[in-house]
Amino acid sequence: MTRRAFADVSVGDALPETTVHITRATLVQYAGASLDRNPIHWDERFAQSVGLPDVIAHGMFTMGAAATTVEDWAGDAGAVVELGTRFTKPVVVSYDEGADVVYGGKVTALDEQTRQATLEVSATCGEDKVLGRCTARVQLA
Amino acid sequence: MTRRAFADVSVGDALPETTVHITRATLVQYAGASLDRNPIHWDERFAQSVGLPDVIAHGMFTMGAAATTVEDWAGDAGAVVELGTRFTKPVVVSYDEGADVVYGGKVTALDEQTRQATLEVSATCGEDKVLGRCTARVQLA
Repeated sequence: MTRRAFADVSVGDALPETTVHITRATLVQYAGASLDRNPIHWDERFAQSVGLPDVIAHGMFTMGAAATTVEDWAGDAGAVVELGTRFTKPVVVSYDEGADVVYGGKVTALDEQTRQATLEVSATCGEDKVLGRCTARVQLA
Repeated sequence: MTRRAFADVSVGDALPETTVHITRATLVQYAGASLDRNPIHWDERFAQSVGLPDVIAHGMFTMGAAATTVEDWAGDAGAVVELGTRFTKPVVVSYDEGADVVYGGKVTALDEQTRQATLEVSATCGEDKVLGRCTARVQLA
């Protein structure tokens, strides 16, 4: 992959929409990778006992997938200068269905001097907005 | 800890009995550490669908705990020259109770020339012998 060129980008450009399918296995795997082994991420009885509808995905996993969306668009993970978000709704991962999070985004600003793009990233699960104010700054070529 | 001295050991000496309590959380943690994320170790519905009574512990976990028993007795993990076993019965880890595996063992032979001890290690869960022919060779000081 090569880094996207500033000259090829316009304000309003859309990022390709991608869907990330999350299963219980994803969360056990991410628990091991992140060392966040909170049982709300793998034990549905525990999750329900603390008032959640079911097991929920790690917020950092959903944020990480947002970063991947930006990186794929930028053509270079090293191009992402900044990425921030708020966790607005948990992603509930059912045993049978798992969960699908749909990522997208658009270019909201371009800085000619620095050749940086500002992106707004969206992440939704069903009707729920999973990430709020998810913005990224990308250094283009 | 210092390595146990050959002069202090006799054939028939017993290793202190230790009980290792295993929970579902233990297995999620071990799945991450070992990268063995087979769902029989964390998904009871899957485990039952393949004919197991419930989630079972990783065999390498129960063997690892046997190694710990030997290391603790030897006073030095580096003293364990050899350890082998067979997995005879799975350790079934229930959601509410988990499982308790009781480890013990005894010295079965001593070699004066090499100052090595041969140990027989036992691992039981309830009535079940979890490990079979579990033997270790330890280099004493």
